[in-house]
Amino acid sequence: MSATESAFNRPALEQLLGKRFFYAPAFSLYGGVAGLYDYGPPGCALQANVLDIWRKHFVLEEDMLEVDCSIMTPAEVLKTSGHVDRFSDWMCKDLKTGEIFRADHLVENVLEARLDGDKLARNAPVETKADKDEKKKKKAAKVTAVRLEDSVVQTYKEILAQIDNYSGPELGELMRTHQIKSPETGNDISEPVVFNLMFASSIGPTGQFPGFLRPETAQGQFLNFKRLLEFNNDRMPFASAQIGRSFRNEISPREGLLRVREFTMAEIEHYVDPAKKDHARFSEVADYKLSILPASVQLSGKTDLLNITVGEAVEKKIIDNQTLGYFLVRIHMFLTKIGINPDRVRFRQHMANEMAHYACDCWDAEIHTSYGWKECVGCADRSAYDLTVHSNKTGEKLVVRERLPEPLVEEKLQLEINKKVFGPRFKKDAKAVEEHLAALDEATLEGLKKSHDEAGTFAINVNGSSFDITKDLITSFEKVSITTHIREYTPNVIEPSFGIGRILYCLMEHVYWTRPEGEARGVLSFPPVVAPTKCLLVPLSTNEVFVPILNKVSAQLRRSGVSSKIDDSGASIGRRYARNDELGTPFGITVDFQSAQDDTITLRERDSTKQIREKIEVVVDLVKEMCEGKTTWADVSAKYPAFVSQEVAE
Amino acid sequence: MSATESAFNRPALEQLLGKRFFYAPAFSLYGGVAGLYDYGPPGCALQANVLDIWRKHFVLEEDMLEVDCSIMTPAEVLKTSGHVDRFSDWMCKDLKTGEIFRADHLVENVLEARLDGDKLARNAPVETKADKDEKKKKKAAKVTAVRLEDSVVQTYKEILAQIDNYSGPELGELMRTHQIKSPETGNDISEPVVFNLMFASSIGPTGQFPGFLRPETAQGQFLNFKRLLEFNNDRMPFASAQIGRSFRNEISPREGLLRVREFTMAEIEHYVDPAKKDHARFSEVADYKLSILPASVQLSGKTDLLNITVGEAVEKKIIDNQTLGYFLVRIHMFLTKIGINPDRVRFRQHMANEMAHYACDCWDAEIHTSYGWKECVGCADRSAYDLTVHSNKTGEKLVVRERLPEPLVEEKLQLEINKKVFGPRFKKDAKAVEEHLAALDEATLEGLKKSHDEAGTFAINVNGSSFDITKDLITSFEKVSITTHIREYTPNVIEPSFGIGRILYCLMEHVYWTRPEGEARGVLSFPPVVAPTKCLLVPLSTNEVFVPILNKVSAQLRRSGVSSKIDDSGASIGRRYARNDELGTPFGITVDFQSAQDDTITLRERDSTKQIREKIEVVVDLVKEMCEGKTTWADVSAKYPAFVSQEVAE
Repeated sequence: MSATESAFNRPALEQLLGKRFFYAPAFSLYGGVAGLYDYGPPGCALQANVLDIWRKHFVLEEDMLEVDCSIMTPAEVLKTSGHVDRFSDWMCKDLKTGEIFRADHLVENVLEARLDGDKLARNAPVETKADKDEKKKKKAAKVTAVRLEDSVVQTYKEILAQIDNYSGPELGELMRTHQIKSPETGNDISEPVVFNLMFASSIGPTGQFPGFLRPETAQGQFLNFKRLLEFNNDRMPFASAQIGRSFRNEISPREGLLRVREFTMAEIEHYVDPAKKDHARFSEVADYKLSILPASVQLSGKTDLLNITVGEAVEKKIIDNQTLGYFLVRIHMFLTKIGINPDRVRFRQHMANEMAHYACDCWDAEIHTSYGWKECVGCADRSAYDLTVHSNKTGEKLVVRERLPEPLVEEKLQLEINKKVFGPRFKKDAKAVEEHLAALDEATLEGLKKSHDEAGTFAINVNGSSFDITKDLITSFEKVSITTHIREYTPNVIEPSFGIGRILYCLMEHVYWTRPEGEARGVLSFPPVVAPTKCLLVPLSTNEVFVPILNKVSAQLRRSGVSSKIDDSGASIGRRYARNDELGTPFGITVDFQSAQDDTITLRERDSTKQIREKIEVVVDLVKEMCEGKTTWADVSAKYPAFVSQEVAE
Repeated sequence: MSATESAFNRPALEQLLGKRFFYAPAFSLYGGVAGLYDYGPPGCALQANVLDIWRKHFVLEEDMLEVDCSIMTPAEVLKTSGHVDRFSDWMCKDLKTGEIFRADHLVENVLEARLDGDKLARNAPVETKADKDEKKKKKAAKVTAVRLEDSVVQTYKEILAQIDNYSGPELGELMRTHQIKSPETGNDISEPVVFNLMFASSIGPTGQFPGFLRPETAQGQFLNFKRLLEFNNDRMPFASAQIGRSFRNEISPREGLLRVREFTMAEIEHYVDPAKKDHARFSEVADYKLSILPASVQLSGKTDLLNITVGEAVEKKIIDNQTLGYFLVRIHMFLTKIGINPDRVRFRQHMANEMAHYACDCWDAEIHTSYGWKECVGCADRSAYDLTVHSNKTGEKLVVRERLPEPLVEEKLQLEINKKVFGPRFKKDAKAVEEHLAALDEATLEGLKKSHDEAGTFAINVNGSSFDITKDLITSFEKVSITTHIREYTPNVIEPSFGIGRILYCLMEHVYWTRPEGEARGVLSFPPVVAPTKCLLVPLSTNEVFVPILNKVSAQLRRSGVSSKIDDSGASIGRRYARNDELGTPFGITVDFQSAQDDTITLRERDSTKQIREKIEVVVDLVKEMCEGKTTWADVSAKYPAFVSQEVAE
């Protein structure tokens, strides 16, 4: 059964992933902690392979500067970045039991359950949340067959289409208007209150230096901007990149790897001149088609996808600029390369209220799963937000200085003060007043000059005190011609940000299927390049005669850079292959008595279960080439005769 | 000047590492935080290469099961593991200024300064801490020329030889006995108090679920022991491994990357039958020589190294068992492979008081640096400690069940109770009493049986209450013959644990030198396999004619898996090469006008600065083979004629 069909058997997949230890709830000996997971050997290898491809696809291909920064972050940094005040979700409580809900999820669940109930009442086909996820039946809102008025159905659909766009007070209002109660108890719900999603700690032995675990890897990259620009020989545009762990103290994490409290991210910060957001390689991707869902469509209460080339989308300003468009395509290519079904990827633009506090535009790559469409990659235009706030706070210039092709000559008002009078007059305030004057813009200066020329004085307000600037304090206040050779600007940042765990989960859903012989015959059809192990080696039996041949094949595969595992357990070959179908191992090699005589081995391909039989050297080369993507099983099986094994009954 | 010489110029190395952004203090825009560092592009690439070799050398070579576990850890787990109570250092304060010191470091610094002062007074050569590290002059204790009595010198040396062996109260005693004051102020110092080194946080929205950042990656591996054993088809011995971030809230971190609050570790947990600590591959390493410093030598106040084969050391029980010995050799091989000077590695055994609470034996691989000998890899025998405490706490059996080759037949006392009488008699206590009886050992049972046979009853104490077990409660209490087919045991754990940042720093010290032409000509002679970038490509000038040739060479190198960087800046070739000497790039390729005519390029080797000139294909193949360790520059320069460039004046 294919993963794209609606009756996707998620519990069967989850059972397989647990049994083969792709991942498991962390600390389960101690009862577990929601939102924390451990990756076992196949999950860990899968992740390493996906990260390796990510690094090649983005970092190496585009010469990005990879860094590895501190996770523990002083509170002051995240105060400046806005995370202390604004990196939060809305939380509410069952007023009697104290159970805690994320407010938007609660509204979403209750309204979806009512729509399902309406469908039941109308005898329309319905797959309830509870059906979809048996294990979590308790957490989903109960579905009862109650017919709703058509206008109510319409209202609910419109609310759900923009559920990410509501503020806390608006969610509270929705709960009152639509009588939303605690799903299990029917109790009243508190007003939504804000809950900051960062894990807090304290650095050093005094307990007086607060810190947070970073909620994104981005800040470490921004704080190193000057060093990175210098490392790049001051050339623009350029990108830094980081792969690492981040932490978000989610209110009530569910949905497995899709919403966790600790996760591996891969983030790119692409620094670009705000006046030149074109991309040098855009022409290479302009004809690439994407399925997109612009904000305007969602705000009209709809979710219809637009299939469009990125060239046209940028031209029509649906996607703001070439750099953003270029990265959307590169993201789509990456997802396809690792085995995500390209037809189940869409790019959804954020609505204004949903946008992170630092972003001025954002497109999410959403992947379709049995849980619905899930954000897996964000691609935000953070503008000059972060570099500007850190620069303002620390007084360190975080800018690019660019030699102008032609010097720029401008007429500007220039105010020169008489320091000899200035110091004695303003004493301790002198410096602040001087700096204030130096920072005034042209329009303000024009106004002050008028007062200066007419009244012989003007007043300014510095730090809450007023100061009179009389003529004797000024040596000149005239238009002068200023020639600039250097342009100074704060770069804008385009940030593709990947949630690796989410992508891995979606991938496992997309490649999972069961053989027609039975539900229990699960297969994970990972592309060879990401498969945790590339090749299984099985001797026909535990007979000693096979050992030297196995070692020979294993050594040749290792030299070819192909990871393999020997399974010399006593289980039948069929069972051993079934186990490796579940592990997603694309190739299997059997060593039998004939191998000992003529140096041939059989090669089995996971998805077709078809086999060929050739000399060891030939098989090793074929496996290597298929793992490197230089050839495919289709080509191999067309070229070499099929082998029908006498021994293996699958 | 070689890094092994005593007058090692650490400030010059640190300046180079900062300038080329190998690493830098994190959050320096905000004044920085002691013990937190960011890795820039070359440091990040160096780390990735070292981890890649680690993975091949340990995980792949020995088929270890790699996992990736949660960093955020519930307090209960770390309470059980002993970290909440015992993972701590002793801290003391300057009683007037409040400045905080790590107690053992304070005693060490003050006594070392006094010994230096004594040498000064005796006109002996002395290199003071302050000389060694100019930047931290303030933090080192002041050295004044004061001659000490010979017996005092002897006492100080003996204290320093076992400085890691003192408890907090003993350190307090030493401070009083030897009048140790706050180094800068001369103020009195508080008694040492214990300070837990874990970063605390809280999980979830209630604030009532305490957690810590893991101080080691080991616990996640232990908690997954059952899953891993099953994944390994129940075979023993086996090892799990994990690479990841850990956190320790050090009291007063100094010494750069050698003592940090957040760090990447690589840890192996090798599970072994406590009755069979031999290692199948020990014979491969038995003749390997190590420099070791056993605990007994240190306790006698000495630090003399013993140069011995690991075979002899195990035979003489200096190293406890083959598995421990095997890993010490594998660690030494790994360090040598990445470029650590093997003559500057020693293995120091922990003294009893210094041992972590979970260890019963421990050998540190210490690497010699300008800061002295520094622990970089610990190799601890954790015995069955961790699996036992987690099993006791959670009631989950963490054992290996092994089919015995011969069934074991034993005569054992067996007590069978009469449940019909038992329940009504003891009511709510029945279960506890029954469990208590079932858990009694043979010797206790023997005693009770005597009372049972003679008095017809015996008393037991369960949860503070006494219960009389009369004859009517018992159906039989006799010796029976019990046949066991399965042996159940808790495996012991041998744990090699690598501090990656420390190793990277030591490596950078070991490969650093300056050209005789001048102090400013720094070189980092990384072996090609770990070098951040393998090959620099330089066009003779910015002339357009070189671009297609550069792109061709660059593409061929990429296909060969060799990372390269083009430097087409306007700087002279000599300056561009000097920059890459500092980055540790082993090979340089120059494209000049002749290249455009005959397709030849020059290849320069970093350490010798010698060059050859060959066809592009030949050079690319040679670079690839040298990077893979298949050939060396010595072989290459012997085979191909030296090329003396007209253009490059270095």
